[in-house]
Amino acid sequence: MGGEPLLLRCRLLLPCAGCSPLRDTIVYAEDGRILYIGDRPPSGAKSGIVIDCPRYGVALPCFYNAHTHVAMTLLRGFHDDSELHEWLARMWFVEKRLTPETIYHASRLAVIEMISTGTCGFIDMYFEPEATAKAAREHGVRARLGPVIMGDVDPYRAVEEARRFARSLEGDPLLGGVINVHSVYAAPLEAVAEGYRAAEELGVPFHIHVSETRREVYEARKKHGKFPVELLESLGALGPRSVLVHAGWIASWELDAVRRARATLVHCPTSNMKLATAGHFPLYEAMEKGINVALGTDGPASNNSLDMLREAKTGLLLQRHSYWDTRVKASHLLEAATRGGARAMGLDRGGAIEPGAPADITVLDLSRPWSLPLRPDNLASAILYAATGGDTLYTIVAGNPVYTPENRARLWSLAEQSAQELNRFLEDIGPGRDPTPPCSPRNACKPG
Amino acid sequence: MGGEPLLLRCRLLLPCAGCSPLRDTIVYAEDGRILYIGDRPPSGAKSGIVIDCPRYGVALPCFYNAHTHVAMTLLRGFHDDSELHEWLARMWFVEKRLTPETIYHASRLAVIEMISTGTCGFIDMYFEPEATAKAAREHGVRARLGPVIMGDVDPYRAVEEARRFARSLEGDPLLGGVINVHSVYAAPLEAVAEGYRAAEELGVPFHIHVSETRREVYEARKKHGKFPVELLESLGALGPRSVLVHAGWIASWELDAVRRARATLVHCPTSNMKLATAGHFPLYEAMEKGINVALGTDGPASNNSLDMLREAKTGLLLQRHSYWDTRVKASHLLEAATRGGARAMGLDRGGAIEPGAPADITVLDLSRPWSLPLRPDNLASAILYAATGGDTLYTIVAGNPVYTPENRARLWSLAEQSAQELNRFLEDIGPGRDPTPPCSPRNACKPG
Repeated sequence: MGGEPLLLRCRLLLPCAGCSPLRDTIVYAEDGRILYIGDRPPSGAKSGIVIDCPRYGVALPCFYNAHTHVAMTLLRGFHDDSELHEWLARMWFVEKRLTPETIYHASRLAVIEMISTGTCGFIDMYFEPEATAKAAREHGVRARLGPVIMGDVDPYRAVEEARRFARSLEGDPLLGGVINVHSVYAAPLEAVAEGYRAAEELGVPFHIHVSETRREVYEARKKHGKFPVELLESLGALGPRSVLVHAGWIASWELDAVRRARATLVHCPTSNMKLATAGHFPLYEAMEKGINVALGTDGPASNNSLDMLREAKTGLLLQRHSYWDTRVKASHLLEAATRGGARAMGLDRGGAIEPGAPADITVLDLSRPWSLPLRPDNLASAILYAATGGDTLYTIVAGNPVYTPENRARLWSLAEQSAQELNRFLEDIGPGRDPTPPCSPRNACKPG
Repeated sequence: MGGEPLLLRCRLLLPCAGCSPLRDTIVYAEDGRILYIGDRPPSGAKSGIVIDCPRYGVALPCFYNAHTHVAMTLLRGFHDDSELHEWLARMWFVEKRLTPETIYHASRLAVIEMISTGTCGFIDMYFEPEATAKAAREHGVRARLGPVIMGDVDPYRAVEEARRFARSLEGDPLLGGVINVHSVYAAPLEAVAEGYRAAEELGVPFHIHVSETRREVYEARKKHGKFPVELLESLGALGPRSVLVHAGWIASWELDAVRRARATLVHCPTSNMKLATAGHFPLYEAMEKGINVALGTDGPASNNSLDMLREAKTGLLLQRHSYWDTRVKASHLLEAATRGGARAMGLDRGGAIEPGAPADITVLDLSRPWSLPLRPDNLASAILYAATGGDTLYTIVAGNPVYTPENRARLWSLAEQSAQELNRFLEDIGPGRDPTPPCSPRNACKPG
């Protein structure tokens, strides 16, 4: 970690999702952790980086995107208005031609988008994770990375490859591994069972799509006699390492199993709506039961944004629409976007601005007309309902200001260069369709 | 109108919602109308304002917000997480104390927000419309304004007051009247009937909330033996001037009546979701039937944004979620946000960039990381799914650039001053509750 000590001074600060705002507050961090929060500089503060928020600059815990495929910036807006099967066939044609170089540029664009919109960390599921790791490292964000296990693979060789990659990140201050098994329908069940064992052994998240569509649930019941979460439980893959993504069609008794297992549920409202998977993510019930709930944007092909603030507003609106009542409040979604995501990543004490917490902080500029008038009593509303990630002034990861008014132009120019690489790649491979999805990781795919 | 001739040069331009993008295009306007669009300056072009779009600056028809209460910026984020009746009682306490000065500042903040996010015009329903007219005039936006008719009023005096106000705007190049009757349940039915007659006579929109909640529909059926749109029809208030807002609980046969009447339906997805009114706005069916569909943000107390691009994405997502399929495309929502709104306002040929159309144009900056990679084939997706109104570079109303990179700082500082006035007003009146809604217009309210 290291880096310089940081002193941040803001007129308004929201220490956590459900907290009251603080006025005229100083946060002091050393070695990536918050040491002090109060109304004057702490005694013994070392000199280092000083950030003075402007008048309407508001500090809050930064966001963790708990489910994404960041390199799909390559496929952002790609045949969005095609029917699903046409879209998939076009996407698979591209995905089978991906190179580490393309994944690097797609990831760099995504990482710059994320730090430009207040996100400090993400859990990713995609091909060639070393290329994404390179982009994440260059820009100082937290990530949980690993190859995706899907298709007709040898389950043990596939998990072994995932294990190898996770080990390669051990000791990294910001990066860590994740065992990514696509789903119970698109990967061998042995990979699910073996993958969870590897996640426990390595102490990393076990990340899987679950109960996204009605069809998935019906087919699991028909083929295995179990609902998807029940199936995970029977495979020994439901536990505190499990990060279960989508869960729009989860059954009430499965929710109790998730609670008993101390697993995390990740809600991706925009993706569920855009892909018309219907279902109903039981956010309120899950939070009431004490289940850890996190928020994800899903990949830029199904959103098409990595902006966690827009995601949080959409998540709140969808809950109110689904319940026909207003029991879900701004604080629920802010909690999922901050503390919920930190827990999913295994980030100790993340998601709050308090002594001992990682110094992961976003400063939003709430001076823009759409966020006014601003008062302490409407601060959570101004953040959740009115601002967007585009209003970010600073993103601070482990005490290091990775996005600032000073480096913005340089970062955006790198993002533009990467975007040009992506368009060149698409032009080079030309249009095409492929009716079958890629198999991954490549060295574990069965021949044929 | 007048003003200087305008020449706009962009590398990418979307001439209408469903159009193919044009490359390297010049738009030339005189006296507020587009005269020419092509690849070189027209012969006989007069010198005037020249705007050269930057590399990723994309021109498109600007947005019309077809339903709002703009001065409710005052109440943005005001007790958002209270229960409905607590919220209403607190809101009514404030609304009964409003002054024209407060409405002016609240409207000025809103107008600056709208032009900062690509909106050229709006249909408004609120108190003290002359104060909103003043703000709209100062910033050169189009508006349809009139007092709201609600509560225990003398219907004829109330409509007479609305008529008088509409006449005061006759001949104004950008502003026009609207007859605002709150709803069939919160205003006398005689005001509905008389209001529609006045709208026809004046040639202005007749703007009313309809079928917003299930309760409203049930009560209309119980009290009058008719569904709300049926009731409007029986009162002679369903015709080409009718702008029917919400319609989440409209019945299929009522949709046919709307089609026959050539009335407009306005969808306000965020407000419907936030207030948990449930229902289902039949956007696809309505558009298929040839009904004019427009998009509105509703007021900043129930959104809390006036950003039409964010609204359009939310509208698309909600349709896909409700239908369980992807038949609704980006172009449907862009059409509603542009041409649909222009028709609702009675703006001849608005909503497209073509010769003869009003020169109402937005230029978005799609160079930001969240909008990349950009290509002509993903342009509509980049606009609808990835950009926000905050990415606006220029808003041009009737050929006049009212929002530009050059005047932005000045405008935002005015918005901030107005926001401070609003906070002072709220502090002065202090907290309070009032269990009954205001009656309006004041001079038509019955004593007691």
